[in-house]
Amino acid sequence: MRARSPGKGPGPLGAVRKASRPAPLPVTTWIARKRDGGSLDDDAIRALISGAATGRVPDYQLAALLMAIVWRGLSPGELGAWLDAMVASGDRMRLGDVPGVKVDKHSTGGVGDKISLCLAPLVAACGVPVPMMSGRALGHTGGTLDKLESIPGFRTALDPRAFARVLAKAGLVLAGQSARLAPADRILYALRDATATVESIPLIASSILSKKIAEGTDALLMDVKVGRGAFLPERARARELARTLVALGSRAGLRVVALLTAMDQPIGHAIGNACELAEAIDVLRGGGPADTRALTVRFGAEMLILGKRARDLAEGTRKIEAAIGSGAGLEKLRLCVRLQGGDVRVIDEPHRLPVARHEAVIAAGRAGFVTSLDAGALGRAATRLGAGRARKEDRVDPGVGIALHAKQGDAVARGAPLATVRYSESARFEAVRAAIAGSFAVGAQRPRAQPLVLERID
Amino acid sequence: MRARSPGKGPGPLGAVRKASRPAPLPVTTWIARKRDGGSLDDDAIRALISGAATGRVPDYQLAALLMAIVWRGLSPGELGAWLDAMVASGDRMRLGDVPGVKVDKHSTGGVGDKISLCLAPLVAACGVPVPMMSGRALGHTGGTLDKLESIPGFRTALDPRAFARVLAKAGLVLAGQSARLAPADRILYALRDATATVESIPLIASSILSKKIAEGTDALLMDVKVGRGAFLPERARARELARTLVALGSRAGLRVVALLTAMDQPIGHAIGNACELAEAIDVLRGGGPADTRALTVRFGAEMLILGKRARDLAEGTRKIEAAIGSGAGLEKLRLCVRLQGGDVRVIDEPHRLPVARHEAVIAAGRAGFVTSLDAGALGRAATRLGAGRARKEDRVDPGVGIALHAKQGDAVARGAPLATVRYSESARFEAVRAAIAGSFAVGAQRPRAQPLVLERID
Repeated sequence: MRARSPGKGPGPLGAVRKASRPAPLPVTTWIARKRDGGSLDDDAIRALISGAATGRVPDYQLAALLMAIVWRGLSPGELGAWLDAMVASGDRMRLGDVPGVKVDKHSTGGVGDKISLCLAPLVAACGVPVPMMSGRALGHTGGTLDKLESIPGFRTALDPRAFARVLAKAGLVLAGQSARLAPADRILYALRDATATVESIPLIASSILSKKIAEGTDALLMDVKVGRGAFLPERARARELARTLVALGSRAGLRVVALLTAMDQPIGHAIGNACELAEAIDVLRGGGPADTRALTVRFGAEMLILGKRARDLAEGTRKIEAAIGSGAGLEKLRLCVRLQGGDVRVIDEPHRLPVARHEAVIAAGRAGFVTSLDAGALGRAATRLGAGRARKEDRVDPGVGIALHAKQGDAVARGAPLATVRYSESARFEAVRAAIAGSFAVGAQRPRAQPLVLERID
Repeated sequence: MRARSPGKGPGPLGAVRKASRPAPLPVTTWIARKRDGGSLDDDAIRALISGAATGRVPDYQLAALLMAIVWRGLSPGELGAWLDAMVASGDRMRLGDVPGVKVDKHSTGGVGDKISLCLAPLVAACGVPVPMMSGRALGHTGGTLDKLESIPGFRTALDPRAFARVLAKAGLVLAGQSARLAPADRILYALRDATATVESIPLIASSILSKKIAEGTDALLMDVKVGRGAFLPERARARELARTLVALGSRAGLRVVALLTAMDQPIGHAIGNACELAEAIDVLRGGGPADTRALTVRFGAEMLILGKRARDLAEGTRKIEAAIGSGAGLEKLRLCVRLQGGDVRVIDEPHRLPVARHEAVIAAGRAGFVTSLDAGALGRAATRLGAGRARKEDRVDPGVGIALHAKQGDAVARGAPLATVRYSESARFEAVRAAIAGSFAVGAQRPRAQPLVLERID
């Protein structure tokens, strides 16, 4: 048997990390404790997380520990220490110069979810600063960063000073996550992704909150999706995540309100990067699909309450609607795009956004009512068209996407268009045509309307 | 997030393995299936095990899979495929030229367990070939290889031809495991050791049997230890392992008989490398402690039945006792030592064996009966004296050890010697003195004698 000692192994991603040789850590003992259902103390957790970031604890030990955590969980005390250690593994943004209660919004990931793009400017227009760090498309769900990058020139990679400067000037900033914030999360997330240890409530919660705390926001509205297009489809699991996020945030000094929202069918009519941005701009102009507007207003009202600019949902709703009506939200987006180097003309001239060359229509095979629309299947189809990534090194195609002409409850005639698909490569379209058609279920009975917001947890 | 893709990662032990780039394996899907309690099919298992051996499946994925197996187990079908794949990962010994049913013996590891050293020559003397590949000291338990290497010149690293030649000439061979047999086991074992995934019945069973099948033996006597000096202290777990070994062996064409034996107190009087070898030689001369003789005779009788040289335990017992009485066993050991390059004079002149310079006696603090003797504590003390290894790269000190003057049930006077400790470094002795004294419990009542063999499973 060859010797294998912690501290000198190569890094998780192929790179050889620092070959320092401090005293060995009793990592195997800690893994065994968690494996047997025991608790890890704060010192062990700090050493494990900082060891993940520095390479002192090798990948294979982290992977075994992560699987043991999927199995045994983390107690509230362990989870608090885990989160603190993740935050402490990197820098923290200093946004103290920006006046007001800063509020961010984060979603567990949906299909057609462009809410952040219209929400952040509206909340900022109502006087609540929104320091938003977003992610990229992941699995079958889209990513706010990819949508923003369909604006020519728009920069999402901002250093901490630029991030704070845009926030101070525009009242919002729409950026990617800095590599210097919660680096342990980046290492652990990559490892979880490769080792089937993503689906753990405490690991998900600490991953989300570590970045938000490091980002410097004071409060967070969490959109936890439920349903077949959601990362956690079951309502009970989604509720458990929401409760964990609220409790863990409170422990760490971050005020969190969580909404459980429906993700059985996509949000709005557009799925894809540029087309979703265009739909979000429609909302800022007072248009857009009803569900997209409704979610934007509700989320905005919640964020105004968190940011102390509204006493209750009624007042928050009025203020957000006013910011739509006055065009103040649109102005905020324009300012933000300009400050982040983007071509502001796309806001008034959406034809400047990228559009894929080819277009095909999927028609209804029978008349009736759309009884369901599979968000998961549509998300996977959009990903295969190029709107998302099969592998992390893939580039997204901003112009491809799916426009939905009918949603749940809509009546359709036989042969009526259900969806228009924009694509760049015929082979990719052919590979998903049947899946897109099959994602629509058409029946004789009009289905009951489903609420958009299922539960509020705070 | 940085990309992480299977197939190009560095090896588990710091070395960069072959950087070939075949189609990616769906390893994450397989891990998720096991995590969720599902079953892996034969193709997946073959790809995982051969990927472990070649480096195609990186360590961190293997580590997560191993922890999921500790959690969810392996079904008999999965375990059979797992074992087959482990065997197929390397060479298999060809011992077809050696006539007779070849029988090996393997133990899960004990303290003071020198049985193999006297057992193998006696069984060989009775006409059953014994191809024995042994291991080194591990944790608090001793290793047959380390004991053999206290013979000056004795070579335990034999290539396959030398292994077969010694076996054909002497009827026994006492060697270390070839690196070419079941290499996947070596990789997985090192990984399990570092990731707290050793304690899994299916993983233990397949690890043991993969080496035995590759070694070319026809039958195997398994000594599964039970009690506080055992690797699996609980009788139920030990029984589960024994049953798994018998069933798994049968599936793979290897006849296995398992005995559950007591490992609450050490076997015999000697703990240490050279002193245990000397005690085994005493048994071959017709002496030695009663428990050591009894276990040797019982194991030998079982092996003669497996090797078709005895119809039942009574006949086997008579034959083993005759091989002791005639000195035929001792002759076999002498021949084997000579063929493997060792100094045969140590067999008749045990003072030629290494002995540590210093000696100290541990005396009884009160009069009474030894009610218990903690094999685990004594094993850990011997390891710290240098008889075993704290780290795998440590060298063992063949001359250190503990001689027990009283065992469970023996009467002792106040101040009577309980143990003599042989040591090379005073600091090491001082570090274990109290633990050795504390491993003896002395009480007013003579304890009931415990059986040595608790159960037989076949």
